[in-house]
This record gives sequence, C-alpha cells and structure tokens, in this order.
Amino acid sequence: MTRTRTVRALVWGENHHEKNDALTRRLYPDTIHGTIAAALRDGLGHEVVVDTATLDDDAHGLSEERLAATDVLYWWGHVRHDAVADEVVERVHHHVLAGMGLVALHSAHLSKIFTRLMGTTCTLRWRQADDRELVWTVAPTHPLAHGVPQPIVIPRQEMYGEFFDVPQPDDLVFVSGFSGGEVFRSGMTFARGHGRVFYFSPGDQDYPVYHHPGIRRVLCNAALWTAQDRPREAPRLTMRPLDEFATAPAPTEAGGA
Amino acid sequence: MTRTRTVRALVWGENHHEKNDALTRRLYPDTIHGTIAAALRDGLGHEVVVDTATLDDDAHGLSEERLAATDVLYWWGHVRHDAVADEVVERVHHHVLAGMGLVALHSAHLSKIFTRLMGTTCTLRWRQADDRELVWTVAPTHPLAHGVPQPIVIPRQEMYGEFFDVPQPDDLVFVSGFSGGEVFRSGMTFARGHGRVFYFSPGDQDYPVYHHPGIRRVLCNAALWTAQDRPREAPRLTMRPLDEFATAPAPTEAGGA
Amino acid sequence: MTRTRTVRALVWGENHHEKNDALTRRLYPDTIHGTIAAALRDGLGHEVVVDTATLDDDAHGLSEERLAATDVLYWWGHVRHDAVADEVVERVHHHVLAGMGLVALHSAHLSKIFTRLMGTTCTLRWRQADDRELVWTVAPTHPLAHGVPQPIVIPRQEMYGEFFDVPQPDDLVFVSGFSGGEVFRSGMTFARGHGRVFYFSPGDQDYPVYHHPGIRRVLCNAALWTAQDRPREAPRLTMRPLDEFATAPAPTEAGGA
Amino acid sequence: MTRTRTVRALVWGENHHEKNDALTRRLYPDTIHGTIAAALRDGLGHEVVVDTATLDDDAHGLSEERLAATDVLYWWGHVRHDAVADEVVERVHHHVLAGMGLVALHSAHLSKIFTRLMGTTCTLRWRQADDRELVWTVAPTHPLAHGVPQPIVIPRQEMYGEFFDVPQPDDLVFVSGFSGGEVFRSGMTFARGHGRVFYFSPGDQDYPVYHHPGIRRVLCNAALWTAQDRPREAPRLTMRPLDEFATAPAPTEAGGA
Repeated sequence: MTRTRTVRALVWGENHHEKNDALTRRLYPDTIHGTIAAALRDGLGHEVVVDTATLDDDAHGLSEERLAATDVLYWWGHVRHDAVADEVVERVHHHVLAGMGLVALHSAHLSKIFTRLMGTTCTLRWRQADDRELVWTVAPTHPLAHGVPQPIVIPRQEMYGEFFDVPQPDDLVFVSGFSGGEVFRSGMTFARGHGRVFYFSPGDQDYPVYHHPGIRRVLCNAALWTAQDRPREAPRLTMRPLDEFATAPAPTEAGGA
Repeated sequence: MTRTRTVRALVWGENHHEKNDALTRRLYPDTIHGTIAAALRDGLGHEVVVDTATLDDDAHGLSEERLAATDVLYWWGHVRHDAVADEVVERVHHHVLAGMGLVALHSAHLSKIFTRLMGTTCTLRWRQADDRELVWTVAPTHPLAHGVPQPIVIPRQEMYGEFFDVPQPDDLVFVSGFSGGEVFRSGMTFARGHGRVFYFSPGDQDYPVYHHPGIRRVLCNAALWTAQDRPREAPRLTMRPLDEFATAPAPTEAGGA
Repeated sequence: MTRTRTVRALVWGENHHEKNDALTRRLYPDTIHGTIAAALRDGLGHEVVVDTATLDDDAHGLSEERLAATDVLYWWGHVRHDAVADEVVERVHHHVLAGMGLVALHSAHLSKIFTRLMGTTCTLRWRQADDRELVWTVAPTHPLAHGVPQPIVIPRQEMYGEFFDVPQPDDLVFVSGFSGGEVFRSGMTFARGHGRVFYFSPGDQDYPVYHHPGIRRVLCNAALWTAQDRPREAPRLTMRPLDEFATAPAPTEAGGA
Repeated sequence: MTRTRTVRALVWGENHHEKNDALTRRLYPDTIHGTIAAALRDGLGHEVVVDTATLDDDAHGLSEERLAATDVLYWWGHVRHDAVADEVVERVHHHVLAGMGLVALHSAHLSKIFTRLMGTTCTLRWRQADDRELVWTVAPTHPLAHGVPQPIVIPRQEMYGEFFDVPQPDDLVFVSGFSGGEVFRSGMTFARGHGRVFYFSPGDQDYPVYHHPGIRRVLCNAALWTAQDRPREAPRLTMRPLDEFATAPAPTEAGGA
C-alpha cells in the first residue's frame, strides 16, 4: 500500500535571472531550477527521478507527454510570467486537476498557473532589503514538516508579508517572521481537483536560499507529499441513475430488535 | 460597530427557463430571480433593498456603476453560462475580490464567475428524478444556519452528489442527503480577496424550492453574512520600506526584570 | 433577523496581580478586568451591558444563574489557574457547549477551561523582554478584524511564540510577529458545541496592552461575534425513528421527464 | 526519507459484546479487535506488526511501556466507556499529544479518550434499524481515501447522524448518507499536540462491517497515515532568550541595491 515506485519530479525554471543577472549566476551557477533538482536528487536518492524544463524550451518543456509522465511539477518564475503561453498554462492546470502535484515556489505566487488555481490576486507585501527570515512550523504533524528545523533560520532574504491574498489553505504548515516585523504564511497546501498544491515562499534569485539544508529538506518533503499514485484523471460531471444503490435487504436480527 | 446601513442586494437571473419552459413558469410566475428577491424583501424588510438583473439586460445588468452599488450579488444560471460576456465576469470577479458578497446558487456551480473563483472543475454527480433532499446543518454556530430547521426537508428535488470538485471550504455549513443515497456539501463559504462567497445548492427551475420557508431563511441569512461594511478595494501588491515599524523603545520595568 | 437585543458580557479576572504587583496597579488602576469592561462599554455603548467577576467572589462570581444570563464570557487568568474550582470549570464548559461565547485572553491559554475545550497542552514559547509585537490580520473578511489597523503595533509586549499547541482553528484571524523573531497565531476561533470560542493573545499584566485602541477594537468585535441569539442548550445524544422523514411523494413533471 | 520501519499497531477492544451477545459472537468469532487486527495484517503485510489489548487486561493492556512501543492505537468501545480507568486515559492522552496515532472507531465517539481530545460532547443522532450506509469520499487526494471505492456500500448498518458535536476537523475525508435520510461526517482527522487522530464511524457490534473490504482498506490507510516516525515527546512550555536568533549580517549586494 506504501508507494513502491519512484517519484517523477520535473523542476521548471523561468531561467531569466540566470542569463541576465551576475548575482544570480554567482549564487546559482547551476541555475535555480538546476539547484532545486540537485536538492531533490541529493535528499531523496533512488526515491526520485528528476528532470528540468525552462521557458526557453519548446512548449516551455511542458508538452502533454511530459506532463503525463510527471508526478510533481516544481514551478519557479518571477519576471516572465506573462511570457508563459496560455495553452501551456491550460495544460498544466488540467494535469493538476487530474492529479499531478504542483509545488509553487516564491515569486510563482503571481504566475498564471498559481493565480488560476487560487482565483484571487495572490498579492502581498514585499521588500528586498536583507531581512532575516525565520520559518516556523505551526503544523508539526504534517509530512511537509518532517525533519525540518524549528525554526529554519535564513540570514538574509527578501521579505514577503501579509496580507497574502490566497484562499484559506487546507493546511497551514509554515509561518515566517521577518526582522522588519512582517509575518507571512510561507508554507500552505491547497487540494485542487485530484491534485495537491503546495506553495512555499522561501527562495529568491538574489539570495542563496535554495542551498540552505532546511529549505532543501522541505523541497524533498514536498516531492513525497504532493506526488500521488493514482490514475491521471480530472473530476467530471456525471449523470447517475436513481437506482444506482437500490438494495432491498431483508431485516436482520440487529435491526429487528 | 454593528451594521447600521441597509444591505443592497442584487439578484441576477439567467432568465432562460422562465421564457422557455412551461413548468418553470408555473412554479415561478414571478421568475426565479424575482422569487429570490421577494424572499429577501419578505424576510429582511427594511434591512435590505433588493434589485434584479438578467442576462438579457445591457451588460447583463452588471455595469461597473451597478456593481459598485451592490453589497451582495446572488447568481442563478444554468444553461446559458457561456452567454455571459467575459468582460462582465472579469468585472464581477474584481468586485468580489474588492469586497462584494457573492451568493452562487444551485447550477451556478458551473458559471464562469464561480469556476474562476474556485480554480477547479466544480463538477459533481446529478440526477433529475424527484429525490427527497434533506439539508442538515453541520455548523450550528454559523450565522448562515441561524434559525434554520434541522433538517430542511425538500420533498422533491434534483440530486447533486459528491465528489463536488471545489476547494476545501472555509466553513462547511450544510450537508444534504438524497433519497437515492448520495450526499452533498450543499452550503459552503469561501473567502476570496476581500469578498465573502457562499455557495448554496438547493434550488432548481423544475422544483418549487425557492418557495420553501427554510430555504428562504438561508437566502436571507446569506445577505446579512456576505455583505460587508468596507471600502470596495481589492488586495494589491505593495513594496514596503524596511523601517516601517522601526521603534527603539527604552526598556521598561517589565522587560528589565 | 439582525440582533435586536443587547449583548450581555461578563469579564472575569483572576485579580491577583492587581492586588500584589505595583506595576500592574500602575498600568491598570481599575484592574485588568475593569479595563477590559470599560473598553467594551466605550466601544459598544448601548449594544452591550458589561459586568465583571473575579476569582475572589463566591463561586468565582460564576454561578449557574449568572452564566445563564451571560452571552459572552471574557477570561483573564495567569498565576492562579489551579485555584479555579473544578465545578466552576465544569459549569462554564457546559455553558460554552450550550451556546455561551468565550473570549480567552493572553495567559488564559493555560486556564482549566481553555485547555479542557482544546484537548491539548496549549503550551507555547514565551519571553518577557520588551519585544515589539505586530498583530497582522490574515483574514480581512472576518468580523473579528473589522476596523482593525493593519498591523496593530504594540511597542512593548511579552513574547508568545510557536509552536502553540492548540487544535487547528476554524478561522485564523491574526498572526503576530515579535522583534525577537518569533511568530504566533494570536487570534483564532474555535466552535465548540453550540458555542463560539475566540482566543486572543495580546495583553499582559506588565504592559498597558488593554489600553491600546486597536486591541480594544478587537475586544469589542469579539463581543459581537461570539454572542449568539439562541436558546442555551448543549448538543445531546438522541435516538431517532426510522420513518422520521418518510415521505412518499408522487412523481412530478420534472422527475418523470 | 520515506518510512523505513514497520508500523506498530495496537488494537484495543472493550471485549464486552464478544462475551455477552450471541450476535456479535457469530459476526465476529475472532472478536471485533481481533478482526480489525487481522484486517491490518492482511492488508499491510510486512509493513505492520499488530497486537491487541482489551479492557480485561491488566491496566487494560495499556501500560506506559506498551504505549511507548505503539505507533498507532485503534480504539473500539461502546457500553463500558466508564470502566476505563482515568489514569489509563491520562496515559493514552499523553501519548497521543506526544505523537502516537489514534484511530477512534464507531461508538468510541463517546469514549473518555476521544471526548477529552475533542473538548465537546461528541453526541449525535443514532438508530439501529438496518439502514443502508453509503460512505462517500469528499477529499479524494487524502491518503486515507487511497484506493477506497466511491462510495463504500454497507448494506445494513447502524445510523449515525448530524449534528455530530465535534470540533471542525482538520480534514473531512468521508461523509456518509443513510437510507433513512441522515448524513454523517464519518471520516475526520484532528491533529492534537504531536499526534494524529482519525475518527471513522462505520463499524458496529451488530453488523459485519469490519469484514467489508472497503472498510478494511480505510483501516489499513489509517495505520500508515496516523503513524509518524518521530521522537515521542509532547509540546511543552519553554522560556526563550531574547537573543536566540540574534544575527547581525552584513548587507549583501541584493539588499544594498
């Protein structure tokens, strides 16, 4: 009953800062998506196979065939959200509703796929000024928090603060506090259709957050938690007959008493 | 602090069955939207002013000006969802996120505005075969359940059954059981942006559900609960300075102890 | 349908620090419970009648008769939790389950009544060291947040931090951040039986928090939100007949189609 | 990171009906707890080791040592709740808060341990009259629903109906409909302290429900979901220093920008 097959993870990166910003290149010489992919391989070993795709690829590397072979999609985007083709967003949306896991990272809060799944503005407060971020676990029994330090200490980080305009999450797992005083619901889950969505805010192109062992642990937990072993099929409208459950059992000893 | 001004409700109807189906005309001689509007006036008296609008009106009766003067919008649609203009949906969506209440009724589960707010397929099981529906309150402290019979008994009704593909609600208020055996989460709330959304499934063009006193009571509760006394403004992205909360208080007796 | 009668609030205070600590006496010359009572009177005027009771009173001022005439009970205790008689706790518990509102304040997280309602340890991190507390609204549509500044700035305050061992709340309304780096779910609601419970952490005997206009606003909102207009009766076990909802409706035009 | 060790399950039975009622003996020749234990062994194989304990054993079979070696405790009781010693309840409560899983079955809704964890009356409607129960999955992505038929059809069963007076659950996984018309939230999760609690209502001493393959599947899922791989330790109050997270990082390129 326990998962027996390998989780197939696909890490998608916008790959813009890696090409255009010296700071990002220095922090992430293997790209942001490459760094996340390595975190999964390092932490999960044979439990996972990981691939990457970027905005630059054909169909952004997100063909029907590829998504069908993906258990969990990690999404990192920031300044090129608008460049993602609507038909690709449509395809990813369908796959999430049909059971694919989605891990939306950091500035993906404003990505087309995330806002479509949420139905809200997904706006927030922000500041880039070397805040210290502490990521606190508020749901210690949740699989996403398994083995995660209390708190995760991120010495320097972009600030994301409330009000974060997303629907009330299914599970609030992490809440961050920033040295500037703001707080943020930084780890939240949202079931959508047959899929599991996890939003996790720590991570930025200008800070080495994805090298942090505590953050990498959460990224690994996210693969195991969002991936499901189920047929890829979205919920659908069905008309049912009246007598679908018609049973006319004879009274039993219990009911007759 | 208690609400002092009147709730401005707008009941929107697709107005298709009323024009095309003899049964609907007999059950709802004043139209479905007109019947709902009357339920609000009868139940809430001077606490509410109610108007109606339909698909047939200019801009479907949902201009910017009209929505700005609406505290809560009731939405009834069924077979003409696609005929609702995208720009009107966009406008309604914005107003919900900015604080307008939305009461999505029955087959509005597949309306453009509701599916956009949910981000899911909003599909379900259904059957039109004179099921008896019992509407059970599972959140007796919720304002939406105030004064509502336990259960509401609807002798004949269309069946809506699980799995209903919507996000996990903020509050699950009502759960229905049908004589065919199905169950349905029939009353659910969803905060979206600054707005409150209530989905309530009982009600159909082929059954006189909106004449039922228990159902009318819920419709009235919904006006009071979804309407808010707040400026009409959606959440938005804001960059904040680092020293916004900079305070350097001198130690006090308490802290120094 | 809107509330027509006055909310009857009872503010209960342990009244220990007021008698024994010079600092508390200076900050709260009218006692802590007296200060809270005044905040309700000032903010709600004729919408509320407020009384107070303390540990020192007969039956701690919480007789059956008194509770029966109370719509919402505010509870402030700190170092004398054990001195509260079990039979009084039992009585308050019953009244909450039967529909009385309860507002548990600050160190009441470890009171007998609150831990009994929660079923958990209700433990947390803490520190008394002049932290600045910012109280952020994360549920802007909730009545408890109505008119509350974003954030409430409390210049000096005791720190309460996560993990706070309470059940997942129905509504997470406020999250606090402290200058030391900790975060805390500082405003949470919990329906229990027919009653509404609100836990609100800001407030301490060594800081003038209950004089803060933003905090007083929340205290007022809490009276209106936790008070219900319902018969005082707890849920109970009931055996029901099989044919309670037996109906044998004739087929209708709709179902026959 | 995936669980590597075997889940240690302990199935506790009141063992009263098995000794006193001929019907129960005929339905459950191996006792109710023995039947549940066999379901776990059959369904989970080497992933689980299962033991049983009853009210009749010394300390009801629930010594400190035994609980310390238990990952998940299944609880079945009905007419002898009061015979369970308070000190044993206290011990089980502590272990749940410290991380042991608890699966409360059927009439365990009124057990001392469950009501203590909930803080409410845990009352409901009921009837013993051969209702058909359909158990519907309303959270298809939840591990507890993995591989479970939609719906589970139980031809004859005791009826449990709403309002079920428990706190709002973390996850509502199953909702049942009964042929008499009632509905019931029949599968719900509740994190308490460091432990995971699952309440699952189908199952009765007078019906062969625990032989049903769909029900057995849920019982197996429950072992894997409630068991955690964590040190057995309850949350506790801790005083923290002000400078616990004191860091004075030098400005970086990003923040200086």
